[in-house]
Amino acid sequence: MSSVSSSPKTVEEIFKDYSARRAGIVRALTHDVDEFYNLCDPEKENLCLYGHPNETWEVNLPAEEVPPELPEPALGINFARDGMNRRDWLSLVAVHSDCWLLSVAFFFGTRLNQNERYAQCFSEMQVGMGAESSSGQMFGWR
Amino acid sequence: MSSVSSSPKTVEEIFKDYSARRAGIVRALTHDVDEFYNLCDPEKENLCLYGHPNETWEVNLPAEEVPPELPEPALGINFARDGMNRRDWLSLVAVHSDCWLLSVAFFFGTRLNQNERYAQCFSEMQVGMGAESSSGQMFGWR
Repeated sequence: MSSVSSSPKTVEEIFKDYSARRAGIVRALTHDVDEFYNLCDPEKENLCLYGHPNETWEVNLPAEEVPPELPEPALGINFARDGMNRRDWLSLVAVHSDCWLLSVAFFFGTRLNQNERYAQCFSEMQVGMGAESSSGQMFGWR
Repeated sequence: MSSVSSSPKTVEEIFKDYSARRAGIVRALTHDVDEFYNLCDPEKENLCLYGHPNETWEVNLPAEEVPPELPEPALGINFARDGMNRRDWLSLVAVHSDCWLLSVAFFFGTRLNQNERYAQCFSEMQVGMGAESSSGQMFGWR
């Protein structure tokens, strides 16, 4: 995994981090989809799709550090690529990526105190409603 | 990972699944903490803490299937055990477990349609507020 990292400390920073990581993943799954598809070579080792807080995306091996500093995205997305319909595979990656984005946001959220969490829940409510999910945006599920 | 599995299809079933998995994890980190601690031997391979939908917990190797059927919990929690204060290590496991529980709940939630998601966000709002988090319950952070 690359060295792009972040340490958001407020609700607003966490939401900004989430939004930027999500923007990177949406780009991988839409505008850059052919490049993303080609990078996920089933002949390679276990690969993951990372969205970074600078709105970039990366296909890379999982973090070497275990337990990892942050929750890790789904492992081995490349192994499923050639056994599925392309659209179904992208959908699988999008669903796992959405869950990962939420997991990272909640991980940062554990540092917040009760009042800050109360505010956070309203930001995450919007996410929970699917109004911004990568999979939803990609596939028009709403 | 054991064969305990579930496939919740409604908001209520997802919340029930979440609550049961969480009950297992809370038990591992409280009532069964000595057993849990001993199982997380740093000499063993990468281990994970699973909460199952029957309210049991399990320390086991990660799923062999990649990409996994469900989001996976933090990998290699055992490697951090002896390098940290016991309470800090349990806190780390609790935080990662909370994120994993949410990730699994949202994973199941991707199958819901828009109206169902709208209802779901209110259930998850309660979770997002930390009112039920494993880490909060363990460590009295609120």
